[in-house]
Amino acid sequence: MGNVILPKDIEIKINKSSSSPLYIQLYEQLKKYIIEGILAEDCKLPTIRSFAEHLNVNNITIVNAYKLLENSKLIYKKVGSGTFVMPLKAVINLESNLTYSMDEIEFDLDIGADEDIINLSTASPDPNLFPIKDFRRMLDEILERDGGKAFMYHESMGYKPLRESISKYLLEYGINAGASEVHVISGAQQGIDIVSRVLLSNGDCVFVESPTYNGAVAVFKSRGAKIIEIPLMPDGPDMRELEKKLALIRPKFIYVMPNFQNPTGCTYSDRKRKYLLLLCRKYDVMVVEDDYMSDLSYLDVGKMPLKGLDREDRVIYIKSFSKIFMPGLRVGYLIIPESIREKVMGIKHITDIYTSGLMQRVLDLYLRSGIWNKHLEYMKREYSIRYFEAVRAARKFLRGASFTQPYGGLNLWVKLPEKVSSIELFEKCRDKKVVFTPGTVFIKGEVGENHIRISFAAASPAQITEGISIIGSVMEEIKDGAK
Amino acid sequence: MGNVILPKDIEIKINKSSSSPLYIQLYEQLKKYIIEGILAEDCKLPTIRSFAEHLNVNNITIVNAYKLLENSKLIYKKVGSGTFVMPLKAVINLESNLTYSMDEIEFDLDIGADEDIINLSTASPDPNLFPIKDFRRMLDEILERDGGKAFMYHESMGYKPLRESISKYLLEYGINAGASEVHVISGAQQGIDIVSRVLLSNGDCVFVESPTYNGAVAVFKSRGAKIIEIPLMPDGPDMRELEKKLALIRPKFIYVMPNFQNPTGCTYSDRKRKYLLLLCRKYDVMVVEDDYMSDLSYLDVGKMPLKGLDREDRVIYIKSFSKIFMPGLRVGYLIIPESIREKVMGIKHITDIYTSGLMQRVLDLYLRSGIWNKHLEYMKREYSIRYFEAVRAARKFLRGASFTQPYGGLNLWVKLPEKVSSIELFEKCRDKKVVFTPGTVFIKGEVGENHIRISFAAASPAQITEGISIIGSVMEEIKDGAK
Repeated sequence: MGNVILPKDIEIKINKSSSSPLYIQLYEQLKKYIIEGILAEDCKLPTIRSFAEHLNVNNITIVNAYKLLENSKLIYKKVGSGTFVMPLKAVINLESNLTYSMDEIEFDLDIGADEDIINLSTASPDPNLFPIKDFRRMLDEILERDGGKAFMYHESMGYKPLRESISKYLLEYGINAGASEVHVISGAQQGIDIVSRVLLSNGDCVFVESPTYNGAVAVFKSRGAKIIEIPLMPDGPDMRELEKKLALIRPKFIYVMPNFQNPTGCTYSDRKRKYLLLLCRKYDVMVVEDDYMSDLSYLDVGKMPLKGLDREDRVIYIKSFSKIFMPGLRVGYLIIPESIREKVMGIKHITDIYTSGLMQRVLDLYLRSGIWNKHLEYMKREYSIRYFEAVRAARKFLRGASFTQPYGGLNLWVKLPEKVSSIELFEKCRDKKVVFTPGTVFIKGEVGENHIRISFAAASPAQITEGISIIGSVMEEIKDGAK
Repeated sequence: MGNVILPKDIEIKINKSSSSPLYIQLYEQLKKYIIEGILAEDCKLPTIRSFAEHLNVNNITIVNAYKLLENSKLIYKKVGSGTFVMPLKAVINLESNLTYSMDEIEFDLDIGADEDIINLSTASPDPNLFPIKDFRRMLDEILERDGGKAFMYHESMGYKPLRESISKYLLEYGINAGASEVHVISGAQQGIDIVSRVLLSNGDCVFVESPTYNGAVAVFKSRGAKIIEIPLMPDGPDMRELEKKLALIRPKFIYVMPNFQNPTGCTYSDRKRKYLLLLCRKYDVMVVEDDYMSDLSYLDVGKMPLKGLDREDRVIYIKSFSKIFMPGLRVGYLIIPESIREKVMGIKHITDIYTSGLMQRVLDLYLRSGIWNKHLEYMKREYSIRYFEAVRAARKFLRGASFTQPYGGLNLWVKLPEKVSSIELFEKCRDKKVVFTPGTVFIKGEVGENHIRISFAAASPAQITEGISIIGSVMEEIKDGAK
């Protein structure tokens, strides 16, 4: 490219016999180099004349290609200096609103375990619902059957019989994954961490829902990734916003919770699920699906994981057995595309070598014996009582507030009436021994200040009614005071 | 510093009323900037004249300081160009001999679990020695006592009663650490990983024993660290080599196993322990002590962890309960200096939130009830039989080979007779259904090729004798063949 200032490993190919106009060919190639970061931010592009000479095309071809790039905000002109690659931060606001100084679990622990308090903050299940009796029986059976073997080293990928029973179990969720695609992990958080260590390097971008689970954002940031937020609407992400940003930035992946999203409870519509996968295909982007709760659906709308629609091995699926079963188990699994399987195994190995063999064996027995499904039905019954109670109480007591009724999960994401701030409401309710999670734990700014998350995971139906009625009366007081 | 080419954030202070000569003052300050990387590799230093003018000293002060730096291999002269900071790789061979393509656990799994085989390779304990009965009793007691609470979220730092009983237990090992210094982790590997994520960035140096545990080396490399090897002698590291390297390079930490080192079985002498801590104090370097096995001492030489000698909060202590108890438990702990405590908690949180609460509670009960010490005594008795058998058989059957008798642990690190290669010996023995670990799994080159690790962790006394006698006879065959 002679005296042209393009880096020398960038090759532009112009095919004069193609049906695609020359300037479009040039535009597409430059766009790709810019989005992929091969043409660096603020890098100077060749002058029109030298570029045209070099490619043996008319000046107007370069002019038109540059015009398209400028319209796409991929380049900018500086009078008297030339044409340059637009820096990312000029195109898109990279200042994330997502909070990460304190995440929801830390927030929970901070509240403490005062027994008097009605806790509508924790999303950790009621310990009274844990199937201790079944668990002891399974444990005894494993210790009897396997003895010391249950305590020996296990493969990093996971105990093979468990991987097989997970593979079989997944068919019920419309997911066709062989045992070799399943990787056992020590809980969903480890899954997010391992996937990030495999895929993310300093400066990479990750798209997330806004608001989202801040324990994931903290991991992405620890890898030096930039966080790009896609606002959530009641039926899923704002797809126009997503497409606009995809056209400008190529993230390493999009992190989503398509069922009963945390904290909003949002469930993606079928249309948006399909469209999301189409967009990811078009822009060749991976999806990380954190399925933390899809088992807990109350309205029989039959929401399957996004992974079930994935025909291209594009979705990395993270599943925890902890949330609704027993957080203390610390067992979950990943479904991993072929291309990164070895890397995932390597990172799992250096992270903690392998997940507790005893717990893997217990879980395997649960799945095989059918006790798991029995337990799931029991949890759904128990929680649907609490769910309907929470929805009823919120409708009745939270006047002026609004929320989209979720199809499942353990949370209501409530928009407060004007002039009621989530922090003030939280503090005044805490004085009356009711706690919930203010939206600011998930997202800064207006959205966090006028939303709260009410979780009915660990409260009894009576506590739910009482707690929400107290929140309602405190809300009235604040509204009255503001008049 | 005007036209002098030193970076502007580098400030040299010369105190003319100090008793220390001016050129020594200058030397010490430049040395510090070079070692810490603030003066970058190949960075040009000021000319003698301009530096002297700037500091208001005689030219000879600069000349003398530069001479000392040159003697220490910290700078180099290029005729006609000036004086430059020496690049690290020119000073020291950074090409590590430590293997990391396959670590010992992967090697174990690769061997498979053929029941016919005498396995002198795995360092994972004999499952028949696991205290299943006690474990079940403890588990039942916890489930009875705590019910669902055992399965709820726990603090990232660990279950407080367990941290307290560990703190108390540590007194027996001469370690005085409060419960707030103890962090519970999901096994020693996770401890190595967390400490590395807190302390290491791309380009940092780590000193390690050579050979060492390759699962640790893999973690350090995953953080982009350079590995500097310090050869081991029978009584600990080669201290001259260590001091020489410390004078040139400031590592982020030194990773050591002072008791029954893996794979060599080496135990540091008291003199070297103290000297190591003195050196680390002098050069202000942290120590990461991986105490994977100090409980298993047979000769009553009473080797305490290095941490017990640490008066400066300089040693990070990593302890696994897995190795000799039950690998499947996946519980260990760290003792962490105040300065990095918050960061460690943050990384633990994003790694897997917390370690299984059930297992933490079981372990706590073990420690409090005294069953742990009872089990330890039992394991020591059982293993000392195997240990003496292994030492006896190796002396008797491995003619021409040599080894330093370890004070404890589960391995013999055997130097083979000349002309016997560890790989050939391994392959021929495997055909006869005896396996061990060839030295090449731990270290490349000559040391790996003429050493093998014989582990008596999972073989019965009769198998140990038989296995070692077979290794001896195959060794004889190879020697005869080479004549």
